Amino acid sequence: MIAVFGHLNPDTDAIASALVYARLLTRQGHPAQAYRLGELNFETAYVLKELGLTAPELLPQLAAGSEVALVDHNESAQSAPHLAEYEVTRVVDHHKLGDLTTAAPAYLRFEPVGCTSTLLLKLHREAGLDIEPQDARLMLSAILSDTLHFRSPTTTPDDRQAVEFLSPIAGVDDVAGFALAMFAAKSDLGDTPAETLLKMDYKVFPFGDPEQTWGIGVIETTNPAYVFGRQRELLAAMDQIKAQDGLSGVLLSVVDILNETNRTLVLSATEGKVLREAFGVVAQDGVADLGARISRKKQIVPTLEEYFAPQA
Amino acid sequence: MIAVFGHLNPDTDAIASALVYARLLTRQGHPAQAYRLGELNFETAYVLKELGLTAPELLPQLAAGSEVALVDHNESAQSAPHLAEYEVTRVVDHHKLGDLTTAAPAYLRFEPVGCTSTLLLKLHREAGLDIEPQDARLMLSAILSDTLHFRSPTTTPDDRQAVEFLSPIAGVDDVAGFALAMFAAKSDLGDTPAETLLKMDYKVFPFGDPEQTWGIGVIETTNPAYVFGRQRELLAAMDQIKAQDGLSGVLLSVVDILNETNRTLVLSATEGKVLREAFGVVAQDGVADLGARISRKKQIVPTLEEYFAPQA
Ligand SMILES: [Mn+2]
Ligand SMILES: [Mn+2]
Repeated sequence: MIAVFGHLNPDTDAIASALVYARLLTRQGHPAQAYRLGELNFETAYVLKELGLTAPELLPQLAAGSEVALVDHNESAQSAPHLAEYEVTRVVDHHKLGDLTTAAPAYLRFEPVGCTSTLLLKLHREAGLDIEPQDARLMLSAILSDTLHFRSPTTTPDDRQAVEFLSPIAGVDDVAGFALAMFAAKSDLGDTPAETLLKMDYKVFPFGDPEQTWGIGVIETTNPAYVFGRQRELLAAMDQIKAQDGLSGVLLSVVDILNETNRTLVLSATEGKVLREAFGVVAQDGVADLGARISRKKQIVPTLEEYFAPQA
Repeated sequence: MIAVFGHLNPDTDAIASALVYARLLTRQGHPAQAYRLGELNFETAYVLKELGLTAPELLPQLAAGSEVALVDHNESAQSAPHLAEYEVTRVVDHHKLGDLTTAAPAYLRFEPVGCTSTLLLKLHREAGLDIEPQDARLMLSAILSDTLHFRSPTTTPDDRQAVEFLSPIAGVDDVAGFALAMFAAKSDLGDTPAETLLKMDYKVFPFGDPEQTWGIGVIETTNPAYVFGRQRELLAAMDQIKAQDGLSGVLLSVVDILNETNRTLVLSATEGKVLREAFGVVAQDGVADLGARISRKKQIVPTLEEYFAPQA
């Protein structure tokens, strides 16, 4: 049995792609089971509930040498704690290639598209397999989520074509309405503890040499006022995770989905200096206006990577 | 212009796949140029001569940040000397994933098949592109070369299907005869210096932690008697490269293509001990009979990797 899972702090793509890829592998004669590496966010919980699906189980510790397939990530810092003991035989991903290695020739499918599910649709079509409505709905949700319904600069023509192909199979006539309902569910944060908000879509990145480690959270919301109303609590949660995980810096970007803007909470002078020098943005009242830089992958991390890169 | 190249000490797959992938990318609107990272072996020279093609040029040093595509390899030890300064945006390969990383999301296509050209055929078919007869002949040659016409245990059903699909387009009726002519050309080593013979199909592998570095050459031939007639010279060349490159060990496997056997030259007690402990084979007269282990990738390197792996 191949264990299939997405990254820590799973988003809709990490969960949907694990479910869809596990079913694809199973249909192709490789029995597979989807797992998750953390709690669902509200958007993903809404997507699964609407489909009448239960969440995949948390990945247990597997026996050494177990066969695993990664979706939507490849770096060890974003993966299962015991990854080095497992045998990675398959990866489907749309992020830059990090520290992954394989013990033997493996199946790797990476493309610079907006969503892993866009690649999973290609895999189905290349294999000549029809798409089950439930899988179509999962992939459609993941693509709309990752691309913020085509607002994100990570969106490619392949993602748009995938949505066009999948929506009739998924039985979704009003794609815009479907996406808005997902985003509203994601934004309905209620009395979620600040630490949970911070970790909802949070990834750790190594930068530079000597290595610095930064934690970067993103809250994509249709209701940024709610998030800024909890600014003080969020800063306390950032401070705590920074100390606890021995991080060099922590950023939390509040992305207004509908207006396509990013305002990032600035924890201390360290983060303020980096934002100023790397992005040319001066924080006001503890908030740095990063403008239309709404993609962590495409507009935040590469700039930090360049900023921290050792000078040749 | 994207520079496309295969590994150091190129084999037929490294050259053919670079030529075919450069043409495919160009046809898809990404102008590309094939290069090589070393001298052609006799088999590849024969394949190109029969097609009336000249060899790709040696890769010059490119400007920092130049876009490159790797075929048939991914590890830095087997790639261009300045690889770290270039931007790898595409890799098509059938080897295990080594120390490769990318600065941004890239296009990676790895599958555990017998030959890179088998994957290039898939890329053409997935893109709905017809195959030019010249490309068909190049891919056919590469697949027959890498799989030793299906004798190698690396052969997969995909490789067999690719040969079946390509041979009529390439205008090759007698696939077995075509393969034998290639292998004969490869075996016609004449007065090639011993150092050149050693380096014809030679790769460097890091093993274990702390890291050891081993050089492993393979001579695939229909005429092993000729090679063993030059055993003394070859051992001298192995000794020299070991000292010069500061290697932990050097192996040279003489693979009898037609009889599917591997007899490996043993340079010193160091190599003898490793072959004895890792493969359970005791050398006689400086030659270790590794039996039917004719694939470096599948039957030699993984065993050494396991042997040198740090104990958990
Ligand atoms: Mn994703
Ligand atoms: Mn190859």
